[in-house]
Amino acid sequence: MTRSILTVPVQKIDGQSSTPFQDLLAVEEPLEIRLGDKSVSITMRTPGHDTELAAGFFFTEGILHGAQELEGIDAAKNSVAVKLKPEVEIDLDRLERHFYTTSSCGVCGKASIEALRVQGCPVIAANWPVVNSSVIHDLPEILRRDQSIFDRTGGLHAAALFDGAGNLLMVREDVGRHNAVDKVIGAQMLAGRTPLHDKLLLVSGRASFELVQKALMAGLPILAAVGAPSSLAAETAHRFNLTLLGFVRDGRFNIYSGASRIR
Amino acid sequence: MTRSILTVPVQKIDGQSSTPFQDLLAVEEPLEIRLGDKSVSITMRTPGHDTELAAGFFFTEGILHGAQELEGIDAAKNSVAVKLKPEVEIDLDRLERHFYTTSSCGVCGKASIEALRVQGCPVIAANWPVVNSSVIHDLPEILRRDQSIFDRTGGLHAAALFDGAGNLLMVREDVGRHNAVDKVIGAQMLAGRTPLHDKLLLVSGRASFELVQKALMAGLPILAAVGAPSSLAAETAHRFNLTLLGFVRDGRFNIYSGASRIR
Repeated sequence: MTRSILTVPVQKIDGQSSTPFQDLLAVEEPLEIRLGDKSVSITMRTPGHDTELAAGFFFTEGILHGAQELEGIDAAKNSVAVKLKPEVEIDLDRLERHFYTTSSCGVCGKASIEALRVQGCPVIAANWPVVNSSVIHDLPEILRRDQSIFDRTGGLHAAALFDGAGNLLMVREDVGRHNAVDKVIGAQMLAGRTPLHDKLLLVSGRASFELVQKALMAGLPILAAVGAPSSLAAETAHRFNLTLLGFVRDGRFNIYSGASRIR
Repeated sequence: MTRSILTVPVQKIDGQSSTPFQDLLAVEEPLEIRLGDKSVSITMRTPGHDTELAAGFFFTEGILHGAQELEGIDAAKNSVAVKLKPEVEIDLDRLERHFYTTSSCGVCGKASIEALRVQGCPVIAANWPVVNSSVIHDLPEILRRDQSIFDRTGGLHAAALFDGAGNLLMVREDVGRHNAVDKVIGAQMLAGRTPLHDKLLLVSGRASFELVQKALMAGLPILAAVGAPSSLAAETAHRFNLTLLGFVRDGRFNIYSGASRIR
């Protein structure tokens, strides 16, 4: 069985005193992600939910558009092969580096945003949902209660899916925050529940461009981060009408875009 | 001029009240890293010290072994081209995915460690340095004092280089923690100061396999993290005799490997 947590002996130093101690560490292992026979990516991840991780990766990168395109997924130790139906056209160029490039400005943040539009990243509809700020305030504590069972390592990022009333639907954890998000979105896609137009996603750390991209590809209207967003995360959210919330903790948060969805 | 911080208008929600407010965000922009004419990688980074970032990237990946191999570095907006002297043999395979693979176990953590050995990653000598635990306890506060000038965003990872007496030598910050480390190590390499056998590196977040790899390639004997290490970070540190410290904060820390260097 794959393990997500490992016990190791450490020396605990407190001031000048030293005590031997058994610590719990988040497991980090490479996972090879394959599209059929082709090795596409190796990511350092926490073992568990590898199938969902690979499915979510291809879905949020725009290669796979839904469970109906899947022929099957083969998982072995540290390797997952996603097989698409023969009639599905594959645009592997999307995974290549020109993703961040346009002819007008070369490699830049604007080009990264523009590339999302070209590859069909949806603009989130304005009309729904509207969520109470009290629901947002409660999210981190709900996540923390659930995480306390699993993450005793301090080394795992979490991604948590909620409905608009603040009910927790799913939590996934990983040493890589993009992996935690791919695991959640992959699971929802495999269950036929995408696009996630009436859900919201909470991430335990910071919000980068990559996480905003993944939320958008899943059709999520609201992305909430316990930490800070980057400049490009905020610009991208604004461009695609995603509600982006940062510093969601201690009864406070900041709205970086899409304020009309918060009551 | 490239900016590292951007001011954006946000709504600050505190309980039920909403206040307009100017927030500071860490800038995230793509950087294309080239080896001569060949585009090798695109990384999302915070602009600034791009030359050092690219130099540190090639150095810690084992492509470039020191400033003496450099012909020059050309930096443009969001693109840096590193040129090696014509006589330098380049092993670009090191950047490819078989890096994590061996014939015995395929893709796995053990293979990732073994691959480091095969590519010449040094085992850190046992004899030096020995650092007082009081020096370690002081590191986060020294970093915080320095960071308070620059990181008002909450969105930047920091990497800080210290000497064995706890004097701060250099701080670099970035939205990507591996970039912050590459910027520090790249700057030291370009100044002819590698290997960093009598220095220690503090990182503001968690310690992954990748950060341990970078510390080892720079010859650093001690890597200290404010956050948790992963299982593979601890295993790799142990294998190459690196002193790995985690949860360095509030007058406490854990020693995951190389305890003999802490007095």
